[in-house]
Amino acid sequence: MTSPAQAVGQIVEAAGPRVPALLSDVEDRLAELVRGHGEVLATHAGATIAAGGKRLRPLLVLLAAGPPDDDAPDVVRCAVAVELVHSATLVHDDVLDAADLRRGRPTVWASAGRDMAIAVGDLLFSRAFAEMALTGSLASVRSLSRASSALAEGELLQREDAWNADVSVERYLHRCELKTAALFEASCELGAQHGARDTERGLRAFGRRIGLAFQLLDDVLDVSGPPERTGKPRGTDLLDGTVTLPLILARERDSELRELDVRAIDGPEAAAEVCDRIADTGALEESRRRALEVVAEAKTALPHSRLGDGQRTALELVADSVVDRYS
Amino acid sequence: MTSPAQAVGQIVEAAGPRVPALLSDVEDRLAELVRGHGEVLATHAGATIAAGGKRLRPLLVLLAAGPPDDDAPDVVRCAVAVELVHSATLVHDDVLDAADLRRGRPTVWASAGRDMAIAVGDLLFSRAFAEMALTGSLASVRSLSRASSALAEGELLQREDAWNADVSVERYLHRCELKTAALFEASCELGAQHGARDTERGLRAFGRRIGLAFQLLDDVLDVSGPPERTGKPRGTDLLDGTVTLPLILARERDSELRELDVRAIDGPEAAAEVCDRIADTGALEESRRRALEVVAEAKTALPHSRLGDGQRTALELVADSVVDRYS
Repeated sequence: MTSPAQAVGQIVEAAGPRVPALLSDVEDRLAELVRGHGEVLATHAGATIAAGGKRLRPLLVLLAAGPPDDDAPDVVRCAVAVELVHSATLVHDDVLDAADLRRGRPTVWASAGRDMAIAVGDLLFSRAFAEMALTGSLASVRSLSRASSALAEGELLQREDAWNADVSVERYLHRCELKTAALFEASCELGAQHGARDTERGLRAFGRRIGLAFQLLDDVLDVSGPPERTGKPRGTDLLDGTVTLPLILARERDSELRELDVRAIDGPEAAAEVCDRIADTGALEESRRRALEVVAEAKTALPHSRLGDGQRTALELVADSVVDRYS
Repeated sequence: MTSPAQAVGQIVEAAGPRVPALLSDVEDRLAELVRGHGEVLATHAGATIAAGGKRLRPLLVLLAAGPPDDDAPDVVRCAVAVELVHSATLVHDDVLDAADLRRGRPTVWASAGRDMAIAVGDLLFSRAFAEMALTGSLASVRSLSRASSALAEGELLQREDAWNADVSVERYLHRCELKTAALFEASCELGAQHGARDTERGLRAFGRRIGLAFQLLDDVLDVSGPPERTGKPRGTDLLDGTVTLPLILARERDSELRELDVRAIDGPEAAAEVCDRIADTGALEESRRRALEVVAEAKTALPHSRLGDGQRTALELVADSVVDRYS
């Protein structure tokens, strides 16, 4: 098992010394945008953005763009734009989930209320497109709007499917593609648009698959915990009415789970019991196995011959890091 | 006084017979977009968009673009994009205000819940940028993102200022510029970008001013009613904690209003009493007078020499229609 810090170290080693400098440019630009649009945004969105997170999507943009020039302002703008869309989604998700904490800090919803959180999310969305327009690439604007449409559509489907345990595996995977994989795909696509265009198709496929694996493993973690590592109680998805792959697979194997009314799960203890029952069926291993398959497919999708050695290695390490979070 | 139907008739007469056909193209495209992104969007956003409204912003795009070609797809796309941003804002506003009805129909919030409404709004935002990218004009993408940023920033300021009766006239006007005027300005700007570029500066100033007047008069109407014409009880803004120009001016003239704690207004009857008190100070006439001044400034800002006769007349009629709603 590799620690997150080690994983980043290996990625940087493979991708070259310019990557940390560009990631730092991304941070600077995000901070600048947060400061530059009034104190309200600075206060409320600042916390969400500054709190960090893994910056996995910006990293994908940079790596997909290939060995960078000393100055790569458009690649940095694309990386900033995807992180802004991601942050906007988080701020709105926290309203939907009435979440108090995100990355260990109070959410905008918790500190400023629902109204501010909706407006902050809208502003972050708008700034993402403004930033993207600065690249001068309409193709990039299109990629971003396609991804942000998919995110919202995925959220709609998830709300529509809420509490419905009969949802099919195909429908679940389609939701994951929209809700998570589309922005990973766009990150790789955007990098390729500002790097070597002939890598775009392969990199898109790579991004989509690791995004899907990311979501699959996230959903496993919600059931498996442990809470001290995930920072949230087990079964949070169940309490929100979100039916994910572990439960879908477990229902095929356990007739009592098949009879379960998700609405009847009335608190964290009941949710933890359902999680144990799901785990007993072996559905978590099966879900993990599927995710690992998708990661393997992602690596295969990489247009190997058209990537530099360091670039390919770095992207493969990112794919591994998606798995390693959970091993 | 001119009825809305008469006003539209006059505008069309001045602007030429192609305008109704293009407005109809806008409707078709809006309906197509709503149908084309899954049944969830079709159900929930369809109601908001199909319910219509005045389509004032699309009309401004078309008029600002000048005498249209037979086929003006990019102008139609711009008109669609501004209406999508406007609709997204309405859907999110209805969540903020917990509003049951919009244009006489149930809001997305009321029919589908807060979660769906946030996601529907996000999707409409995203589709707006996708539509704009189809025009192939980065300048237009920039105009739209600038306006949608302003809308969100205005919403943030309004929430920040909530319940604060000490807000200054300048701050109030700044909020109106962001919350309303920016999208009117962008509508005219977008039209000019796809029409005669040398009209852009003057048309932007025109749009900004009629947007400001529109908001000023909207805020007067909230105090003046009558409810049977506005479709909502008087003093809705007060109950939301939104302090607008009539109260700001009335507080300068009535010491009891100056002492008023907006939070203490505890229901529609109390709100109606405060509205009466505001009206007694003459603050409504003063607010209307300021709005009319702004409309006059808007007309002056029109780049007369560079507009066709019909185009100029049609734009002036739109400016008048903003006033006429309330006469």
